[in-house]
Amino acid sequence: MPIARLTDAERGDALKSLPGWSLRADGLAIVRELKFADFGEAFGFMTRVAIQAEKVDHHPEWFNVYNKVRITLTTHDAEGLSLRDVALAKFIDGVV
Amino acid sequence: MPIARLTDAERGDALKSLPGWSLRADGLAIVRELKFADFGEAFGFMTRVAIQAEKVDHHPEWFNVYNKVRITLTTHDAEGLSLRDVALAKFIDGVV
Repeated sequence: MPIARLTDAERGDALKSLPGWSLRADGLAIVRELKFADFGEAFGFMTRVAIQAEKVDHHPEWFNVYNKVRITLTTHDAEGLSLRDVALAKFIDGVV
Repeated sequence: MPIARLTDAERGDALKSLPGWSLRADGLAIVRELKFADFGEAFGFMTRVAIQAEKVDHHPEWFNVYNKVRITLTTHDAEGLSLRDVALAKFIDGVV
């Protein structure tokens, strides 16, 4: 069964529940930028998210330089945002 | 003591010794793109590099999506490439 893409209304509701995230310009992904004390903390965070990503089989796109991590969530199978992105974003919000 | 930036000649020699790497357009960084079997392998690789990066206090800029990792090495204190980048690149080449 294909993964359902959120409707515009669902996407709006999801964004309201994720204040740390912003919609990418094309509307197909959400983005959050995080800053940690140092590289060790940043990579520790990434490791925790990586384990969760494997568990739920939904993976982030992310960029890291030293204490900064920029995360992009999208669902390729849905060609946009799905509930999987919302769930992973909420997990991430619970970790930081 | 500031970290010395490689001279053009040194940079040329370094690149010859790092065939998997390419010079970024501005000449201030080297880049390598890697592809692994899956996310677990990609993140396992990143974890090994992260531990080394902490050990030598020199950190990569990197982007990951699923099984792909794009690594950029540069030395901010040298405003370009230094021997630290060469050493970390060689470590990475030894891991993959």
